[in-house]
Amino acid sequence: MAVWSERMLIERIRQASEGSADGLITSIGDDCCEVRANGSFLLSTDSLIDSIHFNRSFHPPHLLGRKSIAVNLSDIAAMGGKPRFVLLSLNLPEDLEWEWISAWLDGALEILNEYDCMLIGGDTVKSKELGITVTVLGEPVGEGAIYRTGAKEGDTLWVSGPLGSAGAGLALLSNDHLQSGSLDKTLFGALLEAHLNPVPKIALGQKLAKSGFVSSMQDISDGLATDLAHTCKASEVLALIHAERLPYLPELQIAADQLEMEIEDLILRAGEDYQLLFTVKKGQETLFRQSLLQTEPGIVRIGEISSGNGVFLKKKLTIEEISFQGYEH
Amino acid sequence: MAVWSERMLIERIRQASEGSADGLITSIGDDCCEVRANGSFLLSTDSLIDSIHFNRSFHPPHLLGRKSIAVNLSDIAAMGGKPRFVLLSLNLPEDLEWEWISAWLDGALEILNEYDCMLIGGDTVKSKELGITVTVLGEPVGEGAIYRTGAKEGDTLWVSGPLGSAGAGLALLSNDHLQSGSLDKTLFGALLEAHLNPVPKIALGQKLAKSGFVSSMQDISDGLATDLAHTCKASEVLALIHAERLPYLPELQIAADQLEMEIEDLILRAGEDYQLLFTVKKGQETLFRQSLLQTEPGIVRIGEISSGNGVFLKKKLTIEEISFQGYEH
Repeated sequence: MAVWSERMLIERIRQASEGSADGLITSIGDDCCEVRANGSFLLSTDSLIDSIHFNRSFHPPHLLGRKSIAVNLSDIAAMGGKPRFVLLSLNLPEDLEWEWISAWLDGALEILNEYDCMLIGGDTVKSKELGITVTVLGEPVGEGAIYRTGAKEGDTLWVSGPLGSAGAGLALLSNDHLQSGSLDKTLFGALLEAHLNPVPKIALGQKLAKSGFVSSMQDISDGLATDLAHTCKASEVLALIHAERLPYLPELQIAADQLEMEIEDLILRAGEDYQLLFTVKKGQETLFRQSLLQTEPGIVRIGEISSGNGVFLKKKLTIEEISFQGYEH
Repeated sequence: MAVWSERMLIERIRQASEGSADGLITSIGDDCCEVRANGSFLLSTDSLIDSIHFNRSFHPPHLLGRKSIAVNLSDIAAMGGKPRFVLLSLNLPEDLEWEWISAWLDGALEILNEYDCMLIGGDTVKSKELGITVTVLGEPVGEGAIYRTGAKEGDTLWVSGPLGSAGAGLALLSNDHLQSGSLDKTLFGALLEAHLNPVPKIALGQKLAKSGFVSSMQDISDGLATDLAHTCKASEVLALIHAERLPYLPELQIAADQLEMEIEDLILRAGEDYQLLFTVKKGQETLFRQSLLQTEPGIVRIGEISSGNGVFLKKKLTIEEISFQGYEH
């Protein structure tokens, strides 16, 4: 275990943040950093706490570094924005290994680089509990940001890809029995990856925002049942989901069986898939399909919006309300 | 002990953040908040951890709420800026009393209101350890922000008021012997207040930035010896402090005697006074004094800048280097 000091860490962060970016006036090294806006900034903050939001026993630090940033970038994707700058606050126990911190930082810097986003400031403090708080600044693209408030009666309801994958991945990784030998890492690779290394839908979010077809958007972090309830509340509408249209990976059923879990719980109530959930304006579904489905074959219409309140799930013979049944963290 | 849920807390924060502000496009309730900039934004993040940065046994939650915001506003003051918006990340243990959280929030919202600054977003998570991360956005005023990099040979060196007060206040509050009965809360009122409820020098910072006389500025959070070393490093200059010019409250000597501490340690090496430390451009001292000293009698010239590196303290017969001897947290 290499000994480390806050000074070492700050020096590494400072080195990593050297260089210039459009709009960056002052980076790490002053009381504040300073950035110039072209118009408005989108801002989001998320905290991850050891043993609550992640499990170090199976989450490699490099992937956790990527995920710590990814979940924040996903908030920018959900507004249709372009991520620009990141502030990082690390609460670090003194007995945390330098190798762990260094690998975490490599992962965080790697994904920032992939999305052309720059680390410009933050704070590191000693603590008993490992905690990571990321604040991201992004800029709207095209006509502007897409909010949760824009869904209207007659709009159609869409998701950007399969649901339940991250929830199943976490359950597989947390299952002692499966971990002790019988976990099929090839079969379940995509599910494990969905939990360990989620991909923020930045390019798709921007494409949807620029398309002009989308009336509301958010990401799915707490599960479809809860997140869609937020959109319905913000837009004062009712959402009806058709159960048979919900997209999921074929191996999700095998995982659910091995885990003795209901596949519906994974799809509707497990969080962290970071898919985009959006509505397409009334009467524009055909144009939207012609315009986007060829290049974005993963997006799926799962239902529609009508007047009323709450989230409802339609199966063959029943309709039940599922508002806010997702994961609360 | 009142039972609380994150939903209760978020609802209180949401209610407190209702209303509009110039430049605020979207507040709490979407994936991101959105703010419009007039030009650039100043950004700073600070984390406070229970038992490391504060002691709940003697820090009333209302004052800690004020201080959690104040230390961030001080970073904006140090750039000569105007605070505008705040993001709040709270890591809250489940057994924390609702009364404590509620009083903390009252204090935080009170000081935000005093400085016309708005809470626009954040995150609350469950944790084992109480942690508070605040991100503040401000705007430069006048000709623009004042950086640490602007000090030049021949400039004079100033502080905005007495040093060592907060360090003595913390030591008095932490001293079991004094706490058990003999602590004179009237005599030491200003010292205790300096630790428990520091005042960010927002108006003075803006006045200094607008004056045109100031070449560099920062706040004193980690102690004069360390913070001045940061300015010297950033500006590539040497600072000489005259020991006899260092300002402190008269009761500081009495406190130091009772605490059996060196008064010089409190003045140079204890942090958290949140005074401004700034340099006045070469040859402009007389004009600066005529222009500002009448309305700001607390500001004091403590030394001057010359070529070289590091921070030096001049006493009657000696000069010693004191760079980076302050508090590291």
